[in-house]
Amino acid sequence: MSIHAVKRSQSHLAWDNSIPPALHVASGDTVTFDCLDASNGQITPASTASTLASLTLTSLDQVNGPVFVAGAEPGDTLRVDVLEVRVAEWGWSAVIPGFGLLADEFPVPALKIWSLPPEDMPVRAEGQGRYAWFDERRGIRIPLRPFAGEMGVAPGKAGAHSTIPPYKTGGNVDTRHLTEGSVLYLPVEVDGALFSIGDGHAAQGDGEVCGTAIETPMKVTVRLTVVKDKPYVKTPHFISRSPHPSDEQFYTTTGVDSDIREATRAAVRHMIEFLETEYGLSRVEAYMLCSVAGDLRMHEVVDMPNYVIGFMLPKSIFTKG
Amino acid sequence: MSIHAVKRSQSHLAWDNSIPPALHVASGDTVTFDCLDASNGQITPASTASTLASLTLTSLDQVNGPVFVAGAEPGDTLRVDVLEVRVAEWGWSAVIPGFGLLADEFPVPALKIWSLPPEDMPVRAEGQGRYAWFDERRGIRIPLRPFAGEMGVAPGKAGAHSTIPPYKTGGNVDTRHLTEGSVLYLPVEVDGALFSIGDGHAAQGDGEVCGTAIETPMKVTVRLTVVKDKPYVKTPHFISRSPHPSDEQFYTTTGVDSDIREATRAAVRHMIEFLETEYGLSRVEAYMLCSVAGDLRMHEVVDMPNYVIGFMLPKSIFTKG
Repeated sequence: MSIHAVKRSQSHLAWDNSIPPALHVASGDTVTFDCLDASNGQITPASTASTLASLTLTSLDQVNGPVFVAGAEPGDTLRVDVLEVRVAEWGWSAVIPGFGLLADEFPVPALKIWSLPPEDMPVRAEGQGRYAWFDERRGIRIPLRPFAGEMGVAPGKAGAHSTIPPYKTGGNVDTRHLTEGSVLYLPVEVDGALFSIGDGHAAQGDGEVCGTAIETPMKVTVRLTVVKDKPYVKTPHFISRSPHPSDEQFYTTTGVDSDIREATRAAVRHMIEFLETEYGLSRVEAYMLCSVAGDLRMHEVVDMPNYVIGFMLPKSIFTKG
Repeated sequence: MSIHAVKRSQSHLAWDNSIPPALHVASGDTVTFDCLDASNGQITPASTASTLASLTLTSLDQVNGPVFVAGAEPGDTLRVDVLEVRVAEWGWSAVIPGFGLLADEFPVPALKIWSLPPEDMPVRAEGQGRYAWFDERRGIRIPLRPFAGEMGVAPGKAGAHSTIPPYKTGGNVDTRHLTEGSVLYLPVEVDGALFSIGDGHAAQGDGEVCGTAIETPMKVTVRLTVVKDKPYVKTPHFISRSPHPSDEQFYTTTGVDSDIREATRAAVRHMIEFLETEYGLSRVEAYMLCSVAGDLRMHEVVDMPNYVIGFMLPKSIFTKG
């Protein structure tokens, strides 16, 4: 078993099976990736909302790699063990016009720069003891549970496929559960799998509702193993631990509608209204808080014609009660 | 504060604000409801799949009540504290043709009768220590986390509204988090609120994907309180505890699609395939297991055009590894 590294500069802007590998490894090898944030370095701790207007959108969501894993063939599964995720000492969240679950209700750009605690030791998935202040005066803080928003393999279909949407082969799955200790399985469509990773997130809820997490540069280490006996893996599968302590208390708002997406939007809108009324947050503050800390769940999808979607916010983020 | 009771016979089959109250109580009073299962007594421990063909569908999902709460006016909120949920020593799950997330793939009726452990003491929300065997030979067991699938108030709109779908005023929300110790808030639309409850579930995952939970008769006790300062409650809101221990490990399958419902269906279908392959379950067994034990979450809803929906199954239900 060897240990390898992929540099910050070894990134690409599309899923494309013609991109030459940055690295060749054996099955079972470990690779550390040094990744810029999802703005590809365009946003810095000194940025303001006006920076968002000048973003080069075609440079966003770069991924580092690809890594060719020897022995991987179409029909196989790539097992990705997430061994360590280290984030920088700063991050950002944004409302970018045209992007996000409530894009039509939030047309004005907004940017929040976060100060993240220094990393004296690797962060555990539970994030115990490491928090970022959302609003210190109001006593609202977010537990850090870092993960890579993008993990994927090259599609079998030729051509350049945007890194913005996720695919059956993974990519921008933005799944908060893929923290340290988790195991991700991806369906291999090309020889060598061609694995890439990026989009560091220090914290995010299920949904990523405003369109961004706590975005941050990261160094991430994974072990890549070819698996031959899981032909049923046709989209990402994963193993993870509960992201919340067992005594976690949640406040939940719901949306009830015959259209799932409208029910989802209503659940988030109702949480924003709750946060405005009970905690005095502005609408845009509440929307960002939802994105980094709250979880979308589908409570029932069978009692037709109406769905019940819940948006669950852990109460422990409010340290002043 | 007084304690009241609503009998098993005091049920109704529609949400309709013209139904006379079964009971009048003061705000803050506690009421115990004795409820038949959601088949309204049509299914018994001796039933078989053939019983499903003769079900009178218009008698399903009865609710007990309504309870008139003095002082409740349109625009107010009804606070429902779930104090105790006691289930019977048996339950049922079914695949009913035309009903469920994958109805088109499961046209054949199926019925499973469960033996539930006796209640020596009230069940805690965590369900610690109380399980029902799904399959004792295979070592698959489901922790009991009882709740009422139906809790709601009468709609302001006149007429009889089916008790099958949920509404903004609640009803068949089938939300697994509403276990003992939870607090539900409902928007009041008529004088007295007219609260009703029913549809005992011994266990269910988020989604209730096959269309049924572990359905069971129950005795449920709630405290009903009129709240005047929560005008933002326009759909059900609730406070609950995490339904899983902090070290719970999950196996998750996903669906990735530009249509949320198709992504949701794919996530569940992939879990069924996983359970068939790795645990030797039949398709219909796997579908029922998903419904009573697994949770639908929306991992990302912003990276257009594709959604990622996850179906998360706790590994602790498999006691033989």
